[in-house]
Amino acid sequence: MPPPAAPETADGVSRWDRKRAAILEAAQEAFFANGFVGTSMDQVAAAAAVSKQTVYKHFSDKETLFREVVTNVVQVRDGGISPDIFSSGDGSIEERVGSFARGFLRGVMQPQVLKLRRLVTAEAGRFPELGQSFYDLGPKRAAEQLALALRDASAQRGTTLEDPEFAAEHLLSLILSIPLNRAMLLGDHIAFTDAALDRYADEGVAVFLRAYGLSNRA
Amino acid sequence: MPPPAAPETADGVSRWDRKRAAILEAAQEAFFANGFVGTSMDQVAAAAAVSKQTVYKHFSDKETLFREVVTNVVQVRDGGISPDIFSSGDGSIEERVGSFARGFLRGVMQPQVLKLRRLVTAEAGRFPELGQSFYDLGPKRAAEQLALALRDASAQRGTTLEDPEFAAEHLLSLILSIPLNRAMLLGDHIAFTDAALDRYADEGVAVFLRAYGLSNRA
Repeated sequence: MPPPAAPETADGVSRWDRKRAAILEAAQEAFFANGFVGTSMDQVAAAAAVSKQTVYKHFSDKETLFREVVTNVVQVRDGGISPDIFSSGDGSIEERVGSFARGFLRGVMQPQVLKLRRLVTAEAGRFPELGQSFYDLGPKRAAEQLALALRDASAQRGTTLEDPEFAAEHLLSLILSIPLNRAMLLGDHIAFTDAALDRYADEGVAVFLRAYGLSNRA
Repeated sequence: MPPPAAPETADGVSRWDRKRAAILEAAQEAFFANGFVGTSMDQVAAAAAVSKQTVYKHFSDKETLFREVVTNVVQVRDGGISPDIFSSGDGSIEERVGSFARGFLRGVMQPQVLKLRRLVTAEAGRFPELGQSFYDLGPKRAAEQLALALRDASAQRGTTLEDPEFAAEHLLSLILSIPLNRAMLLGDHIAFTDAALDRYADEGVAVFLRAYGLSNRA
């Protein structure tokens, strides 16, 4: 539904946008605390200090609201991976892929991203469409974008990746899986230092580049 | 608590063991259907057709019962990885590691193992000790056993792995992560053919062996 013609306020944010943001914030908290089934549109309206009618004006149903929460949270960790991140700019390919890997891993390991992943995993048996949103906007999109970047980096070196998307998924597996699995199974009290996360990223990248013949090192 | 002196029945299974098995089966079903919080010892007793007192004779509390369910389910997929699986027997190292990888991935992707992983992931925020059981008996033990097997395989080739446990975790990440992540996020209706799983295993092994200099192929 398009927003009604709302006058902008002094800070340039319309009342419509402010309400939308309040609803999304309240919804995220409610979903994290009570799960998808345990959250009602009534609760969200109350927590956002708006009417239930207003919630429905912004989001037609609970699934739509959830999907917007996923979009919001996943965007935090992923500003878009451009196709030239590995093939242009300064530094060796080790440095470029390493820099991407460190940043991406830190994003994935942010508490609210982990909470969301846990939530959609928990509900995936009953509500696979929630996990599908997370998967499409998160791992799938990242792998597709990374595949383009890896294809360009290979082409620049005169080689061809047989299956860039498979390669991208291997890279993501090598960077993310060890700390991510631990966090998922051992709970939110497991904290990794930045140095520990950087080591997972660096070691994963080194294995990837060696295996795919993209390393300058022996 | 030790079993009381129970006479064995005609098929060699004591009544004690039969009741224990019935309780574990009922508990597994209840946990999968209703989660940890949603399952009571009363329900388990009723489903196993024994008294609540009998349940407590076998399992002192719900946590203990859950841990035994985890042990049971995880054992299904993991008969123990011997230190010489890669360094003895017939075939190239590609074939030996490949054979392990295919079998291990199929085990991890069995429906009841996936359900258990989803369950402990869901509860890990509130009950990290449940995930800890799964982690200790599953991924952690597998990585420790694999590390010994990889160390021996390297030694046999006259090389030394700097950090065999890290290498083992990379191997597991490469074999398991892509299909496992999909299953966790997309729900139990996602089914992989054996051929698709074998391809994930084979490609993961190829990347691992190339990266770690264990491949005979160029």
